[in-house]
Amino acid sequence: MLKEILQQGQQTIDQSLERLLPLPTQRPESIHQAMRHSLFAGGKRLRPILCMEAARMIAGRLPDGVEELGSALEMLHTYSLIHDDLPALDNDDLRRGKPTCHVVYGEAIAILAGDGLQTQAYEVLARLKCSAEARVRIIEEIARGTGTVDGMIGGQVKDLEAERQRPDAATLEYIHRSKTGALITASLVSGGIYGNASMPEVQRLRDFGRAVGLAFQIVDDVLDVTQSSEQLGKTAGKDTASEKATYPALFGIDESLRRADELIVSGCNALGSFLERADTLKELAHFLVQRKK
Amino acid sequence: MLKEILQQGQQTIDQSLERLLPLPTQRPESIHQAMRHSLFAGGKRLRPILCMEAARMIAGRLPDGVEELGSALEMLHTYSLIHDDLPALDNDDLRRGKPTCHVVYGEAIAILAGDGLQTQAYEVLARLKCSAEARVRIIEEIARGTGTVDGMIGGQVKDLEAERQRPDAATLEYIHRSKTGALITASLVSGGIYGNASMPEVQRLRDFGRAVGLAFQIVDDVLDVTQSSEQLGKTAGKDTASEKATYPALFGIDESLRRADELIVSGCNALGSFLERADTLKELAHFLVQRKK
Repeated sequence: MLKEILQQGQQTIDQSLERLLPLPTQRPESIHQAMRHSLFAGGKRLRPILCMEAARMIAGRLPDGVEELGSALEMLHTYSLIHDDLPALDNDDLRRGKPTCHVVYGEAIAILAGDGLQTQAYEVLARLKCSAEARVRIIEEIARGTGTVDGMIGGQVKDLEAERQRPDAATLEYIHRSKTGALITASLVSGGIYGNASMPEVQRLRDFGRAVGLAFQIVDDVLDVTQSSEQLGKTAGKDTASEKATYPALFGIDESLRRADELIVSGCNALGSFLERADTLKELAHFLVQRKK
Repeated sequence: MLKEILQQGQQTIDQSLERLLPLPTQRPESIHQAMRHSLFAGGKRLRPILCMEAARMIAGRLPDGVEELGSALEMLHTYSLIHDDLPALDNDDLRRGKPTCHVVYGEAIAILAGDGLQTQAYEVLARLKCSAEARVRIIEEIARGTGTVDGMIGGQVKDLEAERQRPDAATLEYIHRSKTGALITASLVSGGIYGNASMPEVQRLRDFGRAVGLAFQIVDDVLDVTQSSEQLGKTAGKDTASEKATYPALFGIDESLRRADELIVSGCNALGSFLERADTLKELAHFLVQRKK
């Protein structure tokens, strides 16, 4: 059942992205090819799937056109990966098992391809098939979740600054919550808004997202230590090499995984009042901490 | 009169940006300081002023809150400058008379500061004080104007690829229209939408923007040849040094200026039916080709 949802979701998003992205033959070809290179490198589409399942839970069925919202979220996630991998940032050559954008297309085009994916995401969001009122709420939610204050970019900055330092647990939690958790939360909340969620329902999705988003990044830290580059499709052991602050470094692997499990339980509790309608999201939450890459 | 509009507009936008940007003391401080460094380097705020004057012409008065739309446009313009100046792109040390963002804050923070300004712009746009319907139209218009197909990013890509080549007049016009003209057009059109313009009124603003935007970039090319770095506040003679395609290189200075003047005349004609309500926009158009930096 869960396997089916993951496969079906990935396929739906891949098809939707194919429709929403300029063709590789569209001028200027180089940037459209670069955007597609990173976008179609075999991502698991976890954020879009969380978004679509939140919308499905709220609306009682998968709302028409929600895959375009999911696609915009994936564009934003991918833009952040392209910029994160640049030589001036994490300097990574491998991502999703393929050479990174700047390795193939050069730094200039990689920077602009990231910019272009962010821009394209907002164009898609502005044209979603829901009310204009819902669209502006979704755009605000996503802009905050990817922004500089408590969002994705803020987390990237703190993450960079924490290298070769020894941040305490509170700083580490801030980094994880903003760098990864905020976009995961925005994915769930925006899916809920698309499905016409009430304010209390939005709040429950937000609580679930906050817990699951942090757990997701803790597991990411653990996988960086326990898995090989081949298994991950990206360079393993990077955190240790760059003396990056991680949960395993601070708490050890077992304690990190215990905390992740605890977060998943508390996240699922936040969805309690949805009863069995929340089963798929809860299964997804457990999958996120049991995954191997 | 025009001088007053330019000064007043600049002041209005500076104050609005001050309110809309995270404080320099807001965590993570480095990125907020970097965003402000580039945003408050003394820009002329031409795009916001064009936007506000378009809104004023349509609405018959300056609509409440339109300066926030103008501020978002300036954030987008500034993000593009920060990324354009990076070593991997134009590698420029000087902008608006100050050291560029990456010179002061390093490349990683400069990349993220550009990203952050783009994100912040969309958050501001999602919360504008106009109807949700107008907001989504404005966001779509601006995302297209700054996008990869016929927008700002597309122009930057073609501009990079045209270095050390000899593009023909058609390619050069594509570069100028997309790299600079598209955001100028989006500024005017979004101001019109904010002021509640009808479809034919939007079309007239678009025609005006297309002509004025191209003229603006032709004059920019000419100034790069005729002015010193000190006068421009950025490195002069860069186009010649990088063998970049420019109007003066293709047509000579006099013919380039003649074409710019011709474009201004045709642009102003597009506003004919607005009668004297269009006087300020027309004056601004003439100012754009007579400016010295």
